[in-house]
Amino acid sequence: MPINNALAIIKRGVDELLIEQELIDKLKTGKPLRVKAGFDPTAPDLHLGHTVLLNKLRQFQDLGHQVLFLIGDFTGMIGDPTGKSATRPPLTAEQVKENAKSYSEQVFKILKPEQTEVVFNSAWLNDLGATGMIKLAASQTVARMLERDDFSKRYKGNQPIAIHEFLYPLLQGYDSVALKADVELGGTDQKFNLLMGRELQKQAGQPQQCVLTMPLLEGLDGVNKMSKSLGNYVGVAEPANTIFSKIMSVSDELMWRYINLLSFESLDTIEQWKRNVENGANPRDIKVGFAQEIVTRFHSRAAAEEALNDFNLRAKGGIPEDVPAVAIKLESGIIGIAQLLKQAGLAPSTSEAYRAIEQGGVRIDGEKISDKGLKLGAGVIVAQVGKRKFARITLA
Amino acid sequence: MPINNALAIIKRGVDELLIEQELIDKLKTGKPLRVKAGFDPTAPDLHLGHTVLLNKLRQFQDLGHQVLFLIGDFTGMIGDPTGKSATRPPLTAEQVKENAKSYSEQVFKILKPEQTEVVFNSAWLNDLGATGMIKLAASQTVARMLERDDFSKRYKGNQPIAIHEFLYPLLQGYDSVALKADVELGGTDQKFNLLMGRELQKQAGQPQQCVLTMPLLEGLDGVNKMSKSLGNYVGVAEPANTIFSKIMSVSDELMWRYINLLSFESLDTIEQWKRNVENGANPRDIKVGFAQEIVTRFHSRAAAEEALNDFNLRAKGGIPEDVPAVAIKLESGIIGIAQLLKQAGLAPSTSEAYRAIEQGGVRIDGEKISDKGLKLGAGVIVAQVGKRKFARITLA
Repeated sequence: MPINNALAIIKRGVDELLIEQELIDKLKTGKPLRVKAGFDPTAPDLHLGHTVLLNKLRQFQDLGHQVLFLIGDFTGMIGDPTGKSATRPPLTAEQVKENAKSYSEQVFKILKPEQTEVVFNSAWLNDLGATGMIKLAASQTVARMLERDDFSKRYKGNQPIAIHEFLYPLLQGYDSVALKADVELGGTDQKFNLLMGRELQKQAGQPQQCVLTMPLLEGLDGVNKMSKSLGNYVGVAEPANTIFSKIMSVSDELMWRYINLLSFESLDTIEQWKRNVENGANPRDIKVGFAQEIVTRFHSRAAAEEALNDFNLRAKGGIPEDVPAVAIKLESGIIGIAQLLKQAGLAPSTSEAYRAIEQGGVRIDGEKISDKGLKLGAGVIVAQVGKRKFARITLA
Repeated sequence: MPINNALAIIKRGVDELLIEQELIDKLKTGKPLRVKAGFDPTAPDLHLGHTVLLNKLRQFQDLGHQVLFLIGDFTGMIGDPTGKSATRPPLTAEQVKENAKSYSEQVFKILKPEQTEVVFNSAWLNDLGATGMIKLAASQTVARMLERDDFSKRYKGNQPIAIHEFLYPLLQGYDSVALKADVELGGTDQKFNLLMGRELQKQAGQPQQCVLTMPLLEGLDGVNKMSKSLGNYVGVAEPANTIFSKIMSVSDELMWRYINLLSFESLDTIEQWKRNVENGANPRDIKVGFAQEIVTRFHSRAAAEEALNDFNLRAKGGIPEDVPAVAIKLESGIIGIAQLLKQAGLAPSTSEAYRAIEQGGVRIDGEKISDKGLKLGAGVIVAQVGKRKFARITLA
């Protein structure tokens, strides 16, 4: 394939590519490039947000390049060194191993195993020692570090920055040195850290990696970045029906964003879809096609068909097109079904809600609910009481 | 001894004691305190400036306490991690050992060996690892670190601060944790780092060390801090004659500063000397007595007597009281004798200078010079050409 075509594929959907000419030169060598991307070992539940990056890695593989799937287990085993964050407990080596296995099962739905090297940065960072850490720290200045957007804002806003936060970008950069990466991919929020890899490679006398940032995918709410903790995600390991109905729940506007970042259809095809909708086609049909593409990717064509049928059946069950949206704040991470119905305005009281459940008149996402003790966590659901009362509820 | 008397001894000449009440409480326990002071392993040549601190340590020993003489070999073996400073080459373990031996020979002229524990921080810092370094870094914020005077000035003045410079105070503080120090001594320029020990001990659940800062002794020039690299020092391992004549070379004003910080005479005696001079006594006599005290401390009473005799003999040889002072900048660290005499205005040309040497008319510090190839490094000397031409030359 001519370099220009390869470059067009690489650049599709990318936020920024630094430095394009260097990438062209690397591509010209004809050698398989070492393409690095780092993943957090604490959260092996991949969602569509992660797949924006994974898809790009896959495109590199399709062009013949090698993916270095880096699991950041070194800092994962430290956890939150301030001890303040309950969401970042230190992982044991055993947990890292399990999480890595879980990652592999998920990513190889997208990546080609034979062109993927799963690597753990503890392999070289354990040997770094305090001495290596000090030498690494000596390579950069405080002022340079405070150039990073979030550090700069926090420093100016008198928000504390713990000193170890200055060390993490250095470790990430050092990973690129250890791996001799040719390209590193990350979200737009990672740009500073990705560039640190370039600097440290230069100091180490290595060719500098190219840096490629991908946009961050919005969650189902269309506002926040997709994340498990916000509950606004579509997990790649979720059941086909769930993936399908979650995608069907996004707004028509957000749908185009998802299609741009997640669909493997050609840009021409997508442009055609947009024109069709402008000319009066129903965006719902596009959404169905896209939801089927995604379900097929993570399950199978058959599962996608089944999910569509199921979805249509439930739709016939009477969920109207325009369901009022309600947001409920989870005080303790979960909420009981009766409380939920009351707060969503679907039942006048919790006792009325229980009665409705007993009478078989309550459905969540079209499924009849019989368990009065049911608790729900973060997510987006459609709740129904009786024939006519509906709400699309965001629990967060 | 009553606590108040002990406290008065401890506080003599001290710049700052933090926190006095805590020290009183520690003294009240009656247990020997663990008194820490850190020393740089690259420079085992002690000079009088170092002895300000060592004398204070000795006073603690005289009060029954234990001195932890810490050799900072861990960072010594790293050297200057930026690789920019030629004066801080990385030391080998062998060099550290040699330097420590050299230290011991010198410090035990002041400290009591039986109450001195020589410790090396590599013993615990080698085990810290990158993980321990990160956890330590997590304990403090960037803003806290930028409170340190020199960091604050450099940051505001756009002078680079390498990130590892933020790690060194943490390591020094961690040394106090590892040693369970009750008191730490340092120069006034060390206050921030000494307080870091308090903070880290608190976080480690230990009682906090008291912090005691000592003034920095000016060098022979009376302006800069005494330091080997500036050449304005009196080394404790120097020959008796050299120590004696260097001390005799200080100004009458600086003499009082030296006496205050270095003499073991009682405060009452020193006050009496001052009154005597005010009433017309010759300060030179005080200086002689003080120079003899110092030579006695590092050599012997006999050596002090001999040095005085020698000094007087040379004085009779004609070095006048008021020798003009000259400063010569060393471009390459050393200067040839002829060039020196020319630049000091003692010879009209280098060839005239060589002729004077041939004729036996040149003396340095009273010693006749016959080697025309003699090179001199940093220091303060009295040069003489013929009977009447003198200069007190500061080479730096």
